[in-house]
Amino acid sequence: MAARLSCPVASKQRMSASPVAAQESSVGLVVPQTLVVDEPLALQCGKVLPAYQLSYETYGTLNAARSNAVLICHALSGDHHAAGYHNTADKRPGWWDNCIGPGKPFDTNRFFVVCMNNLGGCGGSTGPAAINPQTGKPYGPDFPIVTVRDWVTTQQRLGLALGIERFAVVAGGSLGGMQALDWAISQSEHIAHAIVIAAAPKLSAQNIAFNEVARQAILADPDFHGGRYAEHLTKPRRGLMLARMLGHITYLSEAAMRSRFGRELREGRIGFGFDVEFQVESYLRHQGQSFVDRFDANTYLLMTKALDYFDPAAAFDGDLSRAFSGVTTRFLVLSFQRDWRFPPERSWEIVKALTDADCRVCAMELPGDLGHDDFLKADPAYHGVLQAYMERVARICL
Amino acid sequence: MAARLSCPVASKQRMSASPVAAQESSVGLVVPQTLVVDEPLALQCGKVLPAYQLSYETYGTLNAARSNAVLICHALSGDHHAAGYHNTADKRPGWWDNCIGPGKPFDTNRFFVVCMNNLGGCGGSTGPAAINPQTGKPYGPDFPIVTVRDWVTTQQRLGLALGIERFAVVAGGSLGGMQALDWAISQSEHIAHAIVIAAAPKLSAQNIAFNEVARQAILADPDFHGGRYAEHLTKPRRGLMLARMLGHITYLSEAAMRSRFGRELREGRIGFGFDVEFQVESYLRHQGQSFVDRFDANTYLLMTKALDYFDPAAAFDGDLSRAFSGVTTRFLVLSFQRDWRFPPERSWEIVKALTDADCRVCAMELPGDLGHDDFLKADPAYHGVLQAYMERVARICL
Repeated sequence: MAARLSCPVASKQRMSASPVAAQESSVGLVVPQTLVVDEPLALQCGKVLPAYQLSYETYGTLNAARSNAVLICHALSGDHHAAGYHNTADKRPGWWDNCIGPGKPFDTNRFFVVCMNNLGGCGGSTGPAAINPQTGKPYGPDFPIVTVRDWVTTQQRLGLALGIERFAVVAGGSLGGMQALDWAISQSEHIAHAIVIAAAPKLSAQNIAFNEVARQAILADPDFHGGRYAEHLTKPRRGLMLARMLGHITYLSEAAMRSRFGRELREGRIGFGFDVEFQVESYLRHQGQSFVDRFDANTYLLMTKALDYFDPAAAFDGDLSRAFSGVTTRFLVLSFQRDWRFPPERSWEIVKALTDADCRVCAMELPGDLGHDDFLKADPAYHGVLQAYMERVARICL
Repeated sequence: MAARLSCPVASKQRMSASPVAAQESSVGLVVPQTLVVDEPLALQCGKVLPAYQLSYETYGTLNAARSNAVLICHALSGDHHAAGYHNTADKRPGWWDNCIGPGKPFDTNRFFVVCMNNLGGCGGSTGPAAINPQTGKPYGPDFPIVTVRDWVTTQQRLGLALGIERFAVVAGGSLGGMQALDWAISQSEHIAHAIVIAAAPKLSAQNIAFNEVARQAILADPDFHGGRYAEHLTKPRRGLMLARMLGHITYLSEAAMRSRFGRELREGRIGFGFDVEFQVESYLRHQGQSFVDRFDANTYLLMTKALDYFDPAAAFDGDLSRAFSGVTTRFLVLSFQRDWRFPPERSWEIVKALTDADCRVCAMELPGDLGHDDFLKADPAYHGVLQAYMERVARICL
């Protein structure tokens, strides 16, 4: 494989300037890395990507036995920046910083943690915003549709480039959990443990329906220009904002929305107009607006399609347990009681199929109070379960 | 009150040409009527509407004692055409035809049924698409925000114009049920029975969140032109379509979507593109597209605001039972098990407040299988309950 690391320095550096990053439990300052791959990649859609690059970060140190690698897979809107800070002025750490670091569930004192921006993403890996070498212009809508299986393939390439033949753990929440599942199904010998959090074996019709409305919001935005908005020096801000607002409704439970916002009025009284009136409106607009500054609309479209298409049982006449047949990977499957995007029942479908296939599985339904977003929250019980499982992984793998 | 009926003929005419309309249980051909009101209307928002007109239909005959009048209130996207056909070529009858007609729950052999297009609507009553006499142009965004209470006021005016001092029943589902509730609270002496179906005492934060995304979809459509799209000879089709698609997700339960559409692919295989692939996408796009042809975007905005603002307990320090204090109206409160827009718990909040206020209430949680849309379905158990209650109404009122 013709792959090279663009930056030979270790990606983790401790720093002491920032009070947050200086905490003992933080991985501190991190430098994103890039893997450039010149070997063509045959995608599930039938198209071939002649070359591509993958952005990633690592935290901790790969041990001599190369047995302590943990791959973290990101969800719909995530990227490779899972922990630590990029500079001392950063207000927020990586998206799963509460879970990755010295003494945290993914303990960087013991494990070598890798997180990659998925192909088709907008965090530095090759995606619709990248330049298509055949045209000299951004791929835009010409970027091929990518699937969870394609991501597993590229994640494995990155692992090999880093000297990792077998991951001790592949872990993720939501769409990230689906990647962990697919790793176990397609690369069982290369993954000891899969941690699948707040995921589902496939989307429901309602899940697809939400994705479809989000896509239509983007596709119908006149600034979308058939996906070539970069060439028009614009972006479909309104469509992407709507898509994100809609997503956020599904990330919080009805109860969490009620306890957070209730029917609170921002100005204390009804205004009889269409400006923000209720706190929940303010929250959603803020979430939508801040998202468009950091995310690419074509990538959003691709990510929702990867979700819709994910269905590892499809190749086995819809029998998920057959998909797990012969899988030696061990599993931790977690769900959150108030998650209505991928409710606990969807996780139990996975657990049932695993036990039917005689796979070893630990499973917990956690109380939580946010809903789907609970998988990102630093809840002691949740992190306690992760910590316990990672202790078990350490005893088995290290 | 300076009100006049524009059309003195009876609004119900039997016809025999259409095989559907010729059924014994159909009210047959109906002619919409118009009430023109010259008396100014002071709205809750503080604005005054100098004059307005109300479109309505009636089915059955008002008895000599004027004791058999039933007011049907429509929901978000409904109108005054609740039953029968407008002409022999009509493919579909009025929106609640399965419930209104000879021998049906709202039996037109015994009751005089009235249904009005709400103020601000787009079915013929004065609304944003009507000409503002002060400018000679459509009201558009200048049409004042209307509330459920404003609708009750205008419905009462229509009733008086028709010779009805007191309705035997005010009934409605969803937003229509909220109108029935508000009638009982504000006009108890003028309504013997309220039938409140698939409603809630006020919207939840999640309900408001969905409305907000729908509004943003419309407001962000470049063809919206600040609400003056009629002057630009266009309409915000994309935004209104998105709003409707989103609405439909909330009208069906997850289980109903699964049993109706599952993950069925329209072409039988994945296409790796953004055209319609899953059946549920096809359904939503069809619902959205057909809606924009018949509905006005400014009206949609107004209707969602009326929903958001509805909170009859607010004037009583949030104590709904105090809102019902002294109310002599009797109630039937119905909900559907799989309704996740206004789930049964929301109906039980109403029932609890009613019993706390010593109001007489019948209540049923019905199985149903669609979700919120069950209130429009001709389910034998549901219609049986309505029929039984209406029999009771007949014995008390006729």
